[in-house]
Amino acid sequence: MAAQPGHTDFQIRAARRDDCRDIARMIMELAVFEKMPDQVKISHQELERDGFGPNPLFQCLVAEVPEGHKSAEGCTVVGYTLFYYTYSTWMGSSVYMEDLYVMPEFRGKGIGKGLMSKVAQVGKRKRCVRLQLCVLDWNTPSLDFYAAKGAQDLTAKEGWHFLRFDGDALDALAEEAPED
Amino acid sequence: MAAQPGHTDFQIRAARRDDCRDIARMIMELAVFEKMPDQVKISHQELERDGFGPNPLFQCLVAEVPEGHKSAEGCTVVGYTLFYYTYSTWMGSSVYMEDLYVMPEFRGKGIGKGLMSKVAQVGKRKRCVRLQLCVLDWNTPSLDFYAAKGAQDLTAKEGWHFLRFDGDALDALAEEAPED
Repeated sequence: MAAQPGHTDFQIRAARRDDCRDIARMIMELAVFEKMPDQVKISHQELERDGFGPNPLFQCLVAEVPEGHKSAEGCTVVGYTLFYYTYSTWMGSSVYMEDLYVMPEFRGKGIGKGLMSKVAQVGKRKRCVRLQLCVLDWNTPSLDFYAAKGAQDLTAKEGWHFLRFDGDALDALAEEAPED
Repeated sequence: MAAQPGHTDFQIRAARRDDCRDIARMIMELAVFEKMPDQVKISHQELERDGFGPNPLFQCLVAEVPEGHKSAEGCTVVGYTLFYYTYSTWMGSSVYMEDLYVMPEFRGKGIGKGLMSKVAQVGKRKRCVRLQLCVLDWNTPSLDFYAAKGAQDLTAKEGWHFLRFDGDALDALAEEAPED
């Protein structure tokens, strides 16, 4: 995309297999910010297998800056979003943005907005009528960012709670399943 | 599956294209229970197209009772669950249960548990490490049902809020996307 006046140039593009080390690095940076780094069990190899094989389980975009604007650690891939398609029994096709992340030193330049609006565009081309995501309630900068763009907080507005089975609870559930 | 002693016989099976009228009927029954029937815009034709074509956007299971146990309105398909696969950047493949519903007169017979445990089993066979879902905070019977089976309420425990862009907000977002 064209540079915004006074801002760092950046480009948003589909992620490639060889971006997976950068994506894995940023997944961990985001988890550290969200105070749950212990929950990250995935490696760049698994991202390569799951996202860049014959039946990809997700899609991913990255934001890249020119070499001359690379980060203090030498990174040029400085943001990403990972998303996939879901389905509403009320409305039909939807897109779910699992992650949206921009490295701290590159924030305030429109990169996060660029990544998210690209997900919206890609989703609309696939006839999606919703873009959904989850945010932690103490992450006020993100909540404000999404609200300013017109997102509704369905947990606050309608009372939706997000539930999870995993580990032993998931195993026990699966074992109780009726025979095929 | 085998009948439970003293309970109505029921069978859980993959939904077929010709179940879509029953599924659409139950989607509306669930939306009425959730006090948002106005939000349902989908028809059985769209379910047929989206779920039973060459690239299905979701999977669906139904619970069926014998003719002799049909509902007051003459229905033998008395419950359903609709689910799809998602992806966690921390843990990998996950399964998301969009809907789980059993008609009121058939509750308390293990049908809901049978449908949900089948989703867990199908998901685990696909290497999913999580089964996730959303529930309304005033829907205490469902919250209690899921908690009794070991679900964690991540909204209560960690503060996750569920956000949505749709309508004009989604259109505006997509229009701001950088050029390809």
